Amino acid sequence: MTAVREALDGLGLVDHHCHGVVTAVLTRPDYEALLTEGDPWPGVSLFDTPVGTAVRRHCAPLLDLPAHTAPGTYVRRRAELGAAEVNRRFLAAARTAVFAVDTGFGADRLTPPQALATAAGGGATAYEVVRLESVAERIAADGVEPDAYGDAFREAARTAVRRPGVVAVKSVAAYRTGFALDPERPGAAEVTAAARRWLADGGPRLADPVLVRHLLWTAADLGLPLQLHTGFGDSDLRLHHADPALLTDWLRRTAGALPVLLLHCWPYQRQAAYLTAVFEHVYLDVGLTLHHVGPARARAVLEEALEITPYRKLLYSSDAYGLAEFYHLGALAFRRGLAELLQDRVDTGELALSDALRLASWAGRDNARRIYRFSDDN
Amino acid sequence: MTAVREALDGLGLVDHHCHGVVTAVLTRPDYEALLTEGDPWPGVSLFDTPVGTAVRRHCAPLLDLPAHTAPGTYVRRRAELGAAEVNRRFLAAARTAVFAVDTGFGADRLTPPQALATAAGGGATAYEVVRLESVAERIAADGVEPDAYGDAFREAARTAVRRPGVVAVKSVAAYRTGFALDPERPGAAEVTAAARRWLADGGPRLADPVLVRHLLWTAADLGLPLQLHTGFGDSDLRLHHADPALLTDWLRRTAGALPVLLLHCWPYQRQAAYLTAVFEHVYLDVGLTLHHVGPARARAVLEEALEITPYRKLLYSSDAYGLAEFYHLGALAFRRGLAELLQDRVDTGELALSDALRLASWAGRDNARRIYRFSDDN
Amino acid sequence: MTAVREALDGLGLVDHHCHGVVTAVLTRPDYEALLTEGDPWPGVSLFDTPVGTAVRRHCAPLLDLPAHTAPGTYVRRRAELGAAEVNRRFLAAARTAVFAVDTGFGADRLTPPQALATAAGGGATAYEVVRLESVAERIAADGVEPDAYGDAFREAARTAVRRPGVVAVKSVAAYRTGFALDPERPGAAEVTAAARRWLADGGPRLADPVLVRHLLWTAADLGLPLQLHTGFGDSDLRLHHADPALLTDWLRRTAGALPVLLLHCWPYQRQAAYLTAVFEHVYLDVGLTLHHVGPARARAVLEEALEITPYRKLLYSSDAYGLAEFYHLGALAFRRGLAELLQDRVDTGELALSDALRLASWAGRDNARRIYRFSDDN
Repeated sequence: MTAVREALDGLGLVDHHCHGVVTAVLTRPDYEALLTEGDPWPGVSLFDTPVGTAVRRHCAPLLDLPAHTAPGTYVRRRAELGAAEVNRRFLAAARTAVFAVDTGFGADRLTPPQALATAAGGGATAYEVVRLESVAERIAADGVEPDAYGDAFREAARTAVRRPGVVAVKSVAAYRTGFALDPERPGAAEVTAAARRWLADGGPRLADPVLVRHLLWTAADLGLPLQLHTGFGDSDLRLHHADPALLTDWLRRTAGALPVLLLHCWPYQRQAAYLTAVFEHVYLDVGLTLHHVGPARARAVLEEALEITPYRKLLYSSDAYGLAEFYHLGALAFRRGLAELLQDRVDTGELALSDALRLASWAGRDNARRIYRFSDDN
Repeated sequence: MTAVREALDGLGLVDHHCHGVVTAVLTRPDYEALLTEGDPWPGVSLFDTPVGTAVRRHCAPLLDLPAHTAPGTYVRRRAELGAAEVNRRFLAAARTAVFAVDTGFGADRLTPPQALATAAGGGATAYEVVRLESVAERIAADGVEPDAYGDAFREAARTAVRRPGVVAVKSVAAYRTGFALDPERPGAAEVTAAARRWLADGGPRLADPVLVRHLLWTAADLGLPLQLHTGFGDSDLRLHHADPALLTDWLRRTAGALPVLLLHCWPYQRQAAYLTAVFEHVYLDVGLTLHHVGPARARAVLEEALEITPYRKLLYSSDAYGLAEFYHLGALAFRRGLAELLQDRVDTGELALSDALRLASWAGRDNARRIYRFSDDN
Repeated sequence: MTAVREALDGLGLVDHHCHGVVTAVLTRPDYEALLTEGDPWPGVSLFDTPVGTAVRRHCAPLLDLPAHTAPGTYVRRRAELGAAEVNRRFLAAARTAVFAVDTGFGADRLTPPQALATAAGGGATAYEVVRLESVAERIAADGVEPDAYGDAFREAARTAVRRPGVVAVKSVAAYRTGFALDPERPGAAEVTAAARRWLADGGPRLADPVLVRHLLWTAADLGLPLQLHTGFGDSDLRLHHADPALLTDWLRRTAGALPVLLLHCWPYQRQAAYLTAVFEHVYLDVGLTLHHVGPARARAVLEEALEITPYRKLLYSSDAYGLAEFYHLGALAFRRGLAELLQDRVDTGELALSDALRLASWAGRDNARRIYRFSDDN
């Protein structure tokens, strides 16, 4: 094992963006659905994907199975061990010291932050990330007058982030409107008019451009780190609207107001890297990407993401959702991909070993600590 | 030779999208024009390109010349052997079992499907792909009233695909309007109005957005596989309008209606991969790209194309047009690039050999057979 | 040392797009600001970037320091040697025979072309590139009536390029409006109306779409090579508006009128490559990119840039600005990256050595000489 890999293996990661895991026993269709964030496809196994290959290769051994185990055997063994044991094994293997958990999507079927940290063992701690669209939709569900919505949302967001353990907010604007938005803060009258239309529809999924802008500007006022989904996701997305470069004008206007964390980014990791290089308050990770492309391509994606990214700007996240396997795969792909990339540069004399080790610790842990200011008291 | 390469070399490929070859003897300017799909440039040899290098390296030996033969010698030897012999050699070298041939462009100077299969030898079979823009333009040329155009096109398309040997339709919407189209099916009145404008101009090249939408929705109704040019091509294209991500809304509306095959894709292979991962009915290939980038870069492009693409979603095509060399180069670049990619993963333990072999057969043959349901009776 | 590397090392490069260097002694904040084209970030050293690593690795030895020297030591040693000696060392190390210098930005603090050539030694010569936006803004500053602006700009541009040593013009339209412009030449009345609005504001930074189009069409009329900033730069840019594919319609209209040189291109090097492949008059380089990504990634970027680029279409530039280190780093990254790429292809039999050597000379020197027709008499 190389020096850089050893250092990354020994590092308790900060996983700055993830979700809970399911505790139900999963049938094979359930499992496959969680594997790819989509519906199952008749006649096609979703194990026949890069992420499926990665699970069979790198997760099967943790369930006492040989590498490349057949999917059926894998899912049966999973059920046999039970969700608690499975989750414990994969979470422990990820060696994550701190989890920042987005609790705003599918919370009813997923472990809450504290249970995640407990399952991980080793004294891990968990913090919460508040999904702002969920805050907005709760207000609509609870009933609000259009002209009161703007303030009600701001107040609710303020209240939500004052809860103990909350360290950041998140927006899925990429899914709702995309980033080709007017960068200006909307006026109160505009917000009221938009809220009127939205609430008249019963206040469904928040996807109105004016209300999304109001949401993003509210985040800027809060000043807490704002996590933004960018790049690929499930089918409910227009990929080209999730290119983070589209946010440039808004980022220019919010310089100094808040840290902005571009999540996932693929296939726009170079566009994201550019933004981290020119805006002091912008950061990126390639979470989600890493387990979907698998360890076989994690290094290649990291190489692109790091071409011009300042070393203080790369963070680690798994974006694991539902399956505890993704904690293990994300951490493995990150550690291995980054270690190979850095060690190669050390070996060819391009990088000093001490710099490589520093960069690895920053990316895996310290950059997140610097931005989120986790309190051990929470 | 590695196990994966041997398997791919022994596989009779299904080339699901290609064109005929020329049977005329070619002068050097003619040859260079076909080499790059453009007009010759005074003072510049179009052999001084990656594809030109690939021809000199990998095609010259099949004409009994040393690798890296000078262009002039190459073109003279080609003339000396005669088109029939040249075509026979390159087509045989491609070891293609099934050709699906787009007959809608330049058909007067190219071999028809059956002649292509005969020249390939080895019991190869050929099927036809109907280019829908050509169907539409033929209707205009034959004379039609604007208010009859919508139905006439639908009927002509239905008739065209009922001909024996037709397995798919194709659209070059990427060239005509690009993909930033209203995803909705146009109404009859809209189609009539658009047809009126188009026919008033004499019914030239179909490039009206409403009529292109009508064409795409007609394809959806036919339910046959629809091949779509995406990504790069000749100068008659706006590359950024050929990003397949722009089709997302239309793909969402046509889920379940037809298989959609994204052709070429470069440099948007990752965007295409995303679409194949989230939409059950979407597939991709990197035809055309492979011979243009040449064997030296084919693996790199395939690596990107496969980062998240489900294994049932990658197909092989050469998109060979005019020069029989492209059949050989496309097949070689595909076999070599894919074999190297897979064998490396086998060698590092990331992939089981049996899975690698399965994936190779799927990509080279079985995925196409599954989609196109070729009939040996045709 | 390999044959290709040796040839590239021995080649006097033509750096077809660069800027002068500073002659002042630089404090560490000054130095860091020039390192990344941005403002310093409190608490973060801009040496902690890929370009900072490249400076510590590859520039420190030229200042008699060990590789990977600490930033503080590096900047102190730089001051100790003095700017003249530092500049001399880095410029000599770049072994550049010809510089084409953009004099339109920050000229007051940078060496003029002749001083640059003198500092480089070895009989280097320097030519000038006229930045057209600066010409326009000077006219506004000098005072002009709106209805005279159109002709005044054309006349001033004509006069500017008649000066001895001028070989090209440049536009930073990418920064001002982006490339999603109406491709048509604006009419005189349109230009006057736009000039009226612009001059009423005092004629600041030229960023009016009509006036930018007028500027680009003036370049087309001049017929001299036009250098266009494309792709990444500093924070004063919308990256997605700098995708050169957006220029397609304008390039189609200007075929035959002038050579167009796409500078930098990253992350759109593949889009730029497509344009060079289909338009006879379009060329590219990956200057600026090379020193920002550093020698560790220069080859990877060149591999993408060359996937389909005709060999007559790749040029070398450093785009060095301010710091003489960038001349050295750009040249090193180009020579090393291109040599590794080509030698690998020679070693695997994909490319004849003679072709590799020819391609290297073309890219490093001859393609630029062919386009710019430098006169040794200037």
